[in-house]
Amino acid sequence: MKFEVQITIALKEGMLDPEAMAIQHALNNLGFATEGLRTASIYRITLDAPTPEDARATAMEMCERLLANPVIHDYHVEVAQ
Amino acid sequence: MKFEVQITIALKEGMLDPEAMAIQHALNNLGFATEGLRTASIYRITLDAPTPEDARATAMEMCERLLANPVIHDYHVEVAQ
Repeated sequence: MKFEVQITIALKEGMLDPEAMAIQHALNNLGFATEGLRTASIYRITLDAPTPEDARATAMEMCERLLANPVIHDYHVEVAQ
Repeated sequence: MKFEVQITIALKEGMLDPEAMAIQHALNNLGFATEGLRTASIYRITLDAPTPEDARATAMEMCERLLANPVIHDYHVEVAQ
């Protein structure tokens, strides 16, 4: 059965986010008054698994082995059919 | 009033996504059989606006002026208080 998993990976609270700082600076230069900006990445992956639980477990393993660095990142997995 | 807007920016359907291709290749090399992978970026921005509609309008303007390239990107704005 095919599932689409959505993996969201963000820097942990308190980690320096230079990309966010650059974007916030550029927005401020354009006249937008932002009070905070955080970035995150989404990976939408189609995979074949027998159950939604298996799809989630596979996605978690993808995060642990490749996509996220558990020292600096938080990650979150959602499964849709 | 402070609002947190979440802006999601992704390449339009059919646009070549080299980052996604590289990640999919790496996942396949690790033994994960993926059937499709798309990437997207999230920006969570805290801003001050009188109403949620104003917060949304500001976020849309941020997309149009800086964050997204309307030729290649689709973007989506969600507003939370």
